[in-house]
Amino acid sequence: MVELKILKKSNECKARLGRLFTDHGEIDTPVFMPVGTNGTVKGLWQNQLESLQASIILGNAFHLYLRPGLDVLREFGGLHRFMSWQHSILTDSGGFQVFSLSDKKILEEGVKFRSPLDGSKIFMTPELSMEIQRAIGSDIAMAFDECVEPDASREYVEGSVGRTTRWARRCIEAHRGSRQALFGIVQGGFFEDLRERSAAEITSMDFNGFALGGLSVGEEFSVTTRILAHSVDLLPSDRARYLMGIGSPDIILAAVENGIDMFDCVLPTRMGRHGTALTWTGRVNLKAARNRFDRSPVDENCSCAVCSTYSRAYIHHLLSRDEMLGKILLSYHNISFLMNFVRELREAIAEERYMDFKTECLRNGLIGSNSLESFSSERMG
Amino acid sequence: MVELKILKKSNECKARLGRLFTDHGEIDTPVFMPVGTNGTVKGLWQNQLESLQASIILGNAFHLYLRPGLDVLREFGGLHRFMSWQHSILTDSGGFQVFSLSDKKILEEGVKFRSPLDGSKIFMTPELSMEIQRAIGSDIAMAFDECVEPDASREYVEGSVGRTTRWARRCIEAHRGSRQALFGIVQGGFFEDLRERSAAEITSMDFNGFALGGLSVGEEFSVTTRILAHSVDLLPSDRARYLMGIGSPDIILAAVENGIDMFDCVLPTRMGRHGTALTWTGRVNLKAARNRFDRSPVDENCSCAVCSTYSRAYIHHLLSRDEMLGKILLSYHNISFLMNFVRELREAIAEERYMDFKTECLRNGLIGSNSLESFSSERMG
Ligand SMILES: [Zn+2]
Ligand SMILES: [Zn+2]
Repeated sequence: MVELKILKKSNECKARLGRLFTDHGEIDTPVFMPVGTNGTVKGLWQNQLESLQASIILGNAFHLYLRPGLDVLREFGGLHRFMSWQHSILTDSGGFQVFSLSDKKILEEGVKFRSPLDGSKIFMTPELSMEIQRAIGSDIAMAFDECVEPDASREYVEGSVGRTTRWARRCIEAHRGSRQALFGIVQGGFFEDLRERSAAEITSMDFNGFALGGLSVGEEFSVTTRILAHSVDLLPSDRARYLMGIGSPDIILAAVENGIDMFDCVLPTRMGRHGTALTWTGRVNLKAARNRFDRSPVDENCSCAVCSTYSRAYIHHLLSRDEMLGKILLSYHNISFLMNFVRELREAIAEERYMDFKTECLRNGLIGSNSLESFSSERMG
Repeated sequence: MVELKILKKSNECKARLGRLFTDHGEIDTPVFMPVGTNGTVKGLWQNQLESLQASIILGNAFHLYLRPGLDVLREFGGLHRFMSWQHSILTDSGGFQVFSLSDKKILEEGVKFRSPLDGSKIFMTPELSMEIQRAIGSDIAMAFDECVEPDASREYVEGSVGRTTRWARRCIEAHRGSRQALFGIVQGGFFEDLRERSAAEITSMDFNGFALGGLSVGEEFSVTTRILAHSVDLLPSDRARYLMGIGSPDIILAAVENGIDMFDCVLPTRMGRHGTALTWTGRVNLKAARNRFDRSPVDENCSCAVCSTYSRAYIHHLLSRDEMLGKILLSYHNISFLMNFVRELREAIAEERYMDFKTECLRNGLIGSNSLESFSSERMG
């Protein structure tokens, strides 16, 4: 089971420090959770994740259902043993992934679609999602929700909110008696009253924590922060609050400032594979020719295993030859960067200098007017 | 400079134990050298290579000339600092790579071809190869040779042997005054008398060590071993002997038995990327469906970081999703396997049980009648 202990509330804003207790350890919140969609955080060994002090990672019910499949997961007694990961795991329910498929049929009972791997017919229901997540044995399971398109009509979103509530009830029912924690997901698009309705319905159920879904899916940054600020207050303060699928420093800052405890994103590894580094002074494209002779590390202010060993020029060279090691090193640095960023952010909350920290990030160019980035808009691996 | 100290000669066969001293450390021979064509052993961090006790790796003059280029290498003061590798480096001269290009013109002066990266005209000469290797700053440079096709006519090979000798002389000349060690390469195809002529000419020059080139390029295993057994005796016994481009256990055993000290191959990383593992009982294809539920390690008899942590089923899963980590883990294990294999082989020589060791390898299925493998036939990365 999962329990959240609130350790401190900021005097400056709604930010809070907490500790999440799971069967696999303690997690200091706010926490960034690296994404391991297929049971691997792309390009990193599990012991490298440990060396970066990752205390919880994400798995994905949809992807793990397709491969390795429930039979294999059961044979191993769950994902922890299958992937040799001793720390906590949270699983996304598959809702977001199913809804990002183009060819699907949404019914009251669930969603019909074809496997993107082999075309076989799949009928994903709240009950199946719970069964998958139980086989995975994640410490925290997520309810099966419907994530709507950013340009969905009010009418559609209204119907969808009702469906997500009914599915949430079925998830609770199917999940009864499990040791696994279960989080509910609040939807409602960008309509504040629908967010209120969804929050009222979802939080009336006995979930161990609550997530905000359907944000940072392509909308403008100002819309994200408006809905975020409005929605977090609708969640009970004694349970964990999770903003799904975000990982760029600007949205992390806005989220934590509003009282969010958990977030996840494929950003660090995806950016790494594409040759972009997160640094304390903003993003750096290491594919650019100006790095050819650059003997400095990826980030002067980072002391990770990459920055203390390798130069920008070397990583640029690896990327130019499409060598695996280039992607690996940048993925590692980027995860390290976000882990450090969130650690510093926790310290800033502890020392009541959250706003100073934010100002410093702005001054250094880490966050800025170009806050809205497509990288941050994806929950998929 | 590089010096070889012979520590022991086997009483059973021509195998020998030695120690090679370079500016970057000591190397126990026989030694397997992992290949880092582009300045990276594919998929591995340099500290992982260190943890596998790799004391010398290969770089490739041809590839490093194309990228990152001499200007970058000079800016860094050589490849060691560019790739952050503190131990020894040997560089292939580029001969083999140039000759494996289809569109080239071989002249007495050198070889004209177009860059496979951008189509620009390149004229590779012995002098340019020496200049590149000096900029790389490898501990051991190789002479620029002509590597002939396995089906080349006697007439062609005869002419080529003469050219390789004249190029070797020019390499020595261009290399004069350098601290870097320089090895000569004996060619001669599969003609024993031409091998004799080449060896006589090449060993008459003041090289610090000698290599056999043009073997394991597609010919039958029995041809390789015949030419090998005949050729090693033609090399002076007080200098290092290097068999280029081999790395499968069967040929390593044959080579060492005949008195070879050094060998290199892309085999472990290339096989790893393709999903094949080297094990003490032979090769294992981890892509095969029978691994789906297999909780055992890649190799029961291996205690590397992969085998002590991950299962065959997990690696099979990673490969089936084309996840980087699958290739990474198998590359690591395969290099670990060859490093251990050669370590055990050195112990067997020390304890005068080389033939017992070989018999055991045969009994375990590590080597066998299917000795000839295409993987072993390549010097390229
Ligand atoms: Zn770093
Ligand atoms: Zn192993």
